[in-house]
Amino acid sequence: MYRLYDYLSSGNSYKVRLLLSLLGISYERIDVDIIDGQTRTAAFLARNPNGRIPTLELEDGTHLWESNAILHYLAEATPFLPAHRLDRARVLQWMFFEQYSHEPYIAVLRFWHMHGPMDKQRQAQIEQKREGGNAALAVMQQHLQSHDWFVGRRMTIADIALYAYTHVAGDGGFDLGNYPAIEQWLARVAAQPGYVPITAGTD
Amino acid sequence: MYRLYDYLSSGNSYKVRLLLSLLGISYERIDVDIIDGQTRTAAFLARNPNGRIPTLELEDGTHLWESNAILHYLAEATPFLPAHRLDRARVLQWMFFEQYSHEPYIAVLRFWHMHGPMDKQRQAQIEQKREGGNAALAVMQQHLQSHDWFVGRRMTIADIALYAYTHVAGDGGFDLGNYPAIEQWLARVAAQPGYVPITAGTD
Repeated sequence: MYRLYDYLSSGNSYKVRLLLSLLGISYERIDVDIIDGQTRTAAFLARNPNGRIPTLELEDGTHLWESNAILHYLAEATPFLPAHRLDRARVLQWMFFEQYSHEPYIAVLRFWHMHGPMDKQRQAQIEQKREGGNAALAVMQQHLQSHDWFVGRRMTIADIALYAYTHVAGDGGFDLGNYPAIEQWLARVAAQPGYVPITAGTD
Repeated sequence: MYRLYDYLSSGNSYKVRLLLSLLGISYERIDVDIIDGQTRTAAFLARNPNGRIPTLELEDGTHLWESNAILHYLAEATPFLPAHRLDRARVLQWMFFEQYSHEPYIAVLRFWHMHGPMDKQRQAQIEQKREGGNAALAVMQQHLQSHDWFVGRRMTIADIALYAYTHVAGDGGFDLGNYPAIEQWLARVAAQPGYVPITAGTD
């Protein structure tokens, strides 16, 4: 059985929980308190030298890390990863967009708001984070005005990767009311059979 | 023929040029001056709504963006992308590590040093960027102490993605002399048949 090193409020961890639930795969969930430094212990760094959750322990005892790489691994040979070469590349295009142009703004502002401290150095970056996050949401809004999903005609792991921090962007002060096509897409994702909300573990 | 929207000193663009050269694929190179705002024109945004290079125009006239997604597309069915499911996921693990834990520190400090302006807001972030970059280099050094390549027994697109900004990390003030296993790996990459340096276009 898969073992997921996890933190419930992390969107990156939630991506993996959501896909596992959509696929009906059961797993063991291990809580790792990222605020308390539990990703920095020698035992955890032996699992993931980059010291981050989510980290997935496979049945052979080896570990895979980086949320979007885990999604890709789990989605192979399922409808959540398209078969066509260019479609697969477009799924990755949106997933790299998520990690580079979306998460560092939208997830980071949420983390600062939820966990603090909102010190002077962070205060000085809020405006630039807000701009970057709204730029990413504008790119998504533009795409979703003429497409139901990010790639092809059904939900893929590109949607899961982007859903995770978008649907809780309000926690970091973003107003999704400005992006109606995004709000409609969020509702489509939440209506899928097997959907679970961000704070639900399997235990 | 592929058409690559490109900027010569960009490591993200260089990844694509390097793989195309290693694969012996010819292409048309279009210079886009990112400093002069040429990625922000309506014509360019129609190619890539996220306004970044590299952007690859395919033979059917559609466009693919995000450097690592382009690498993945070009590498399919070549020795630069392994066939085994878990190896492919590990390639992506290192590529997402590159975009999230490496590029935002090492490439960004290089860009600030090369293009400025080194204003007060950037000055305030230098120490944090330096720490993040050295943390990424330490993860790479640890892996390369016991492996010749990031995944499996030959060079893959994981190596290409990580090579692009690592080999010019000195431009941003990083001292690679502290990371001897990285220096040996850089030499292995540069010794591959078809290797081209960062500033070489095909024209």
